Amino acid sequence: MDIAPGQTLLEAAHQHGLGVSSVCAGRGTCGKCRVLIHGQVDEPDAVERLHLSQHDLDRGVRLACRTQARPGQVIRSLRAGGGRARILKGGKGRPVVPAPNVRKVCIAVPPDDQDGSADWNRVAQALGDETVELALTPLRQLPSALKDSPGEITLALRGGRLVSVEAGNTSLRQYGFAFDIGTTTVVGYLLDLTNGREIAVASGLNPQGAYGSDLVSRLSFVQERAEGLSILQQSIVVLMNRLIDEMVEESGIDRSYVYEMTVAGNVVMHHLLLGIDPSGMARAPYAPVILDPLDLPAAELGLHLGRQAQVHVLPNIAGFVGADMVGTLLTTLTHQSTAIQLVIDLGTNGEIALGSRDRLLVCSTAAGPAFEGARIRHGMRAAGGAIDRVRIDKDVHCHVIDGGAPAGICGSGLVDAIAGMLDSGVVTPSGRLLRAAQLKPDIAPRLRARIRGSGQPGDDLRFVLSIPGGSHDHPEVAVTQQDIRELQMAKGAVSAGIQVLKKELGIEDEEIDQVILAGAFGTFVSAESARRIGLIPPLPLDRIRAIGNAAGFGAQLALLSTVERGMAGLVARQSEHVRLSGRTDFQSLFIEALQFPSSIP
Amino acid sequence: MDIAPGQTLLEAAHQHGLGVSSVCAGRGTCGKCRVLIHGQVDEPDAVERLHLSQHDLDRGVRLACRTQARPGQVIRSLRAGGGRARILKGGKGRPVVPAPNVRKVCIAVPPDDQDGSADWNRVAQALGDETVELALTPLRQLPSALKDSPGEITLALRGGRLVSVEAGNTSLRQYGFAFDIGTTTVVGYLLDLTNGREIAVASGLNPQGAYGSDLVSRLSFVQERAEGLSILQQSIVVLMNRLIDEMVEESGIDRSYVYEMTVAGNVVMHHLLLGIDPSGMARAPYAPVILDPLDLPAAELGLHLGRQAQVHVLPNIAGFVGADMVGTLLTTLTHQSTAIQLVIDLGTNGEIALGSRDRLLVCSTAAGPAFEGARIRHGMRAAGGAIDRVRIDKDVHCHVIDGGAPAGICGSGLVDAIAGMLDSGVVTPSGRLLRAAQLKPDIAPRLRARIRGSGQPGDDLRFVLSIPGGSHDHPEVAVTQQDIRELQMAKGAVSAGIQVLKKELGIEDEEIDQVILAGAFGTFVSAESARRIGLIPPLPLDRIRAIGNAAGFGAQLALLSTVERGMAGLVARQSEHVRLSGRTDFQSLFIEALQFPSSIP
Repeated sequence: MDIAPGQTLLEAAHQHGLGVSSVCAGRGTCGKCRVLIHGQVDEPDAVERLHLSQHDLDRGVRLACRTQARPGQVIRSLRAGGGRARILKGGKGRPVVPAPNVRKVCIAVPPDDQDGSADWNRVAQALGDETVELALTPLRQLPSALKDSPGEITLALRGGRLVSVEAGNTSLRQYGFAFDIGTTTVVGYLLDLTNGREIAVASGLNPQGAYGSDLVSRLSFVQERAEGLSILQQSIVVLMNRLIDEMVEESGIDRSYVYEMTVAGNVVMHHLLLGIDPSGMARAPYAPVILDPLDLPAAELGLHLGRQAQVHVLPNIAGFVGADMVGTLLTTLTHQSTAIQLVIDLGTNGEIALGSRDRLLVCSTAAGPAFEGARIRHGMRAAGGAIDRVRIDKDVHCHVIDGGAPAGICGSGLVDAIAGMLDSGVVTPSGRLLRAAQLKPDIAPRLRARIRGSGQPGDDLRFVLSIPGGSHDHPEVAVTQQDIRELQMAKGAVSAGIQVLKKELGIEDEEIDQVILAGAFGTFVSAESARRIGLIPPLPLDRIRAIGNAAGFGAQLALLSTVERGMAGLVARQSEHVRLSGRTDFQSLFIEALQFPSSIP
Repeated sequence: MDIAPGQTLLEAAHQHGLGVSSVCAGRGTCGKCRVLIHGQVDEPDAVERLHLSQHDLDRGVRLACRTQARPGQVIRSLRAGGGRARILKGGKGRPVVPAPNVRKVCIAVPPDDQDGSADWNRVAQALGDETVELALTPLRQLPSALKDSPGEITLALRGGRLVSVEAGNTSLRQYGFAFDIGTTTVVGYLLDLTNGREIAVASGLNPQGAYGSDLVSRLSFVQERAEGLSILQQSIVVLMNRLIDEMVEESGIDRSYVYEMTVAGNVVMHHLLLGIDPSGMARAPYAPVILDPLDLPAAELGLHLGRQAQVHVLPNIAGFVGADMVGTLLTTLTHQSTAIQLVIDLGTNGEIALGSRDRLLVCSTAAGPAFEGARIRHGMRAAGGAIDRVRIDKDVHCHVIDGGAPAGICGSGLVDAIAGMLDSGVVTPSGRLLRAAQLKPDIAPRLRARIRGSGQPGDDLRFVLSIPGGSHDHPEVAVTQQDIRELQMAKGAVSAGIQVLKKELGIEDEEIDQVILAGAFGTFVSAESARRIGLIPPLPLDRIRAIGNAAGFGAQLALLSTVERGMAGLVARQSEHVRLSGRTDFQSLFIEALQFPSSIP
């Protein structure tokens, strides 16, 4: 196949319609795009070492998103997660014993007794004392199931209600989907509900993005267009149906054995999926319609899963602390923890939880999109060409995703860069980028040389990370004074949120036992840099860890077990929402938090 | 308008598309086609005297189906049942206190508290401690209901599950439909569930008749055509939607306030409506799929009633003792009666119940269609032109429905005729129609003259009721030897069924306290004649009564009250089905029962 220069194997495969799994769309966070390469193979990078075992690396397995495509390579896609028990995914998730909401019972049906008993009466007799609530669809299946398999049929029951009647013994065929619906990315997982195994994963960009990239613009779209709600509802359902089709096709399962789906997402995504008007969240007091968990027929949403399938939508905590945070807290089990945990999920909104089994507080802060690389002069998403790691000593050292020349900088790179600029004294704790003349005399000359710009319009004061020119003829990538201000606002909002929760809980930084970073940004940001800029409290690094897509994992937990589903309800009820905008102290804490720490002790 | 000679007002009205209610399609059983006539009015007949008060008769009210249309008449349709409390319909039904399955609660919603509580949380707060199970459709209604009517909304709840959210106070708007689905005729009733009033009634011929007039031929259709079940299911739903539309239009109600529908019918009609394959009932051991009561969304059947509407299908007792019999027994309350009741509903199948609160037995006999005028030489349905009453003394006196010349004879006329023929000695107790030469000498000459025919092919031995010729040039209407045999078979089946139940219960005729005749034929047959031919036991006439369409009334009871619905379940469970074909004594009882009684003591 033709390969463009600098293209990754994943990009090349997608461009040519080859099936290589990817959940994170090439950001290196999911570890799903495993390929076995015959031919010239590059050395694995740090991300690949994180996701792959030494044995895999030795035999030529790489992540397609981290590997440059080269002519003559023969690659084979390895199914992500295939055969691995999900319940052992200890690093990010936690063990769970499957106890799905639908129970399958294979029964021996006594032969027709020649006295004209109703079919269902013969089945009920075999069921013994159990009372079953009937429904139309399974009753319609009953005569043909008995005909196809006279001695043995299988019933699927949901809480005592008959869901499906199947010929023969199908008790080991039971599948479900878990969906994490993000504002930007939608991820679906197909699980075997009998053993918890992950059978397939698929993801795609949320097509609602075409009508507004963030929550506010989607809310405006709903308010301004009479059919806006319906358009957004249908567009997400179209994507979900496509992902379902992909996973069904990839795995070869029969979708009539899919009984349950769980969904986690923020409250606006939740309302839009359900077709519930979220307009109340567009203006003060930002009231949603419904926070409670819901169960509804999949067909009612337009999902192509048959009448046996039901959707369980995880509960929300408050208007801007949604089911995604519930899924995350279900993963961390903060509400049962004896240790005090600080859980941070950073996206456009920063959702923060602080507490333990004694008391659990949550809040949401409007962090803005700086952590996702938006509103930053050379900002970009964490995709190929982005500077995602920066180290500053006597000079600046950048790591570029997929290698090659840098095209811009993503959130984790920006945090690294500003942490290094603080340490080197190029930026003051107040966030001021110093001109060359203002720098202390002991600053390394190579750093000093990177400060450019007059501060006049068209010539911003900036610190250049990547100097243009050279063999690749690449553009300049710099951090401007304005970029630093954007980051200050974002980190200030998060930090002030943490301060409010600490104050409310009556604890100091040292009393926080664990800092847990969830989501894509949380997984890739350097804990040290995040601590340096004051995004997270100044705690030893061994108290800080990342847990990946915990919201999606929480949705999987709720899919696999009704115990977990009940737990999600507990999480939502036990979480106390602290409304930052309602607090008189928030503004002053925010202004204090705009400052960067002078140093980390 | 143009009026054809001999046309009734009802026929003329229907022909010209004028809205005159009729449930029984002109058979004089429903009393719904009340019209106020200005102009020449005939004297009321016996049927009109049954249905109309003296006050109504005096002011010119008549039944359109019993009144001959005449030029120059001005008529006004009076809405049937309008304003009369259904619960007082003592003659046929019995009182019931409305306690519908859906409960409406009007609540004052506290104003938005400016802290961003979810809309539902504010509503739930107003509801107090009550736990409500949520569903998608009402949640979608919530934001606009709160917007349209900020202080006050009404919730519709079904057993703790939220069904509908409505702006303002709509607690007095609550309607439901009860349907009686017969093999031939379908009747729907629209009731106000807050007070039990009947708002509208509509009926039509079951369009499944186009695919087979009786149960056996419809079962064959399902077995022979791949899409047969679907065709029959859709055709009944199309009719029900049409009747619903008619009743909604006539009454002017808003169908979004229709929450419940109940359905009674025989088991084959039940399966066909639900789209459940009834093929098992086409061959021994005649097993149905399901007898239990069912609740399902009206939309799942294709009924145009919105997502708030649910259908409750009454339970069945056995394959050929369906929900129609349950509805009838719910009306008679036989299972609670201290008196021993014999309840008979005669159609193509004769369904019979015998017992009291101590023990209640039911059975079904294949009576055949003789009572409906089918397979009888001059037989016809009880419509205009049918001889429906016959009195025989020294001559024969016939009553013709709608007056005029007789066109044939219906079931009640046939029973009268044969009873009179037995009394006069024209027919022997063995069912033999005597030739003129075989008659006793004291037989009146006019009767003797009515015996015609050689018994050769084309010249059946027969007793002529209506002699052809005269001013109207009408045809002969006679009872043939073969007609008598058909009636013997039919009455023998019913009578043998009664004998089996009596034997099973261990009682004699005298111990039967009440004989209750249900359904159209039961309403119009003469109790005296039915007794004379041995169709019912030889008991004093004051123990025999007719109760009209009790199956339909039972469906209305179950619509109006969950207490009645629970009672229907009790009726079904308490009824012991006696399977006649499984009994060794049935054949000999049947052969004995073919005989007519010599006389009634």
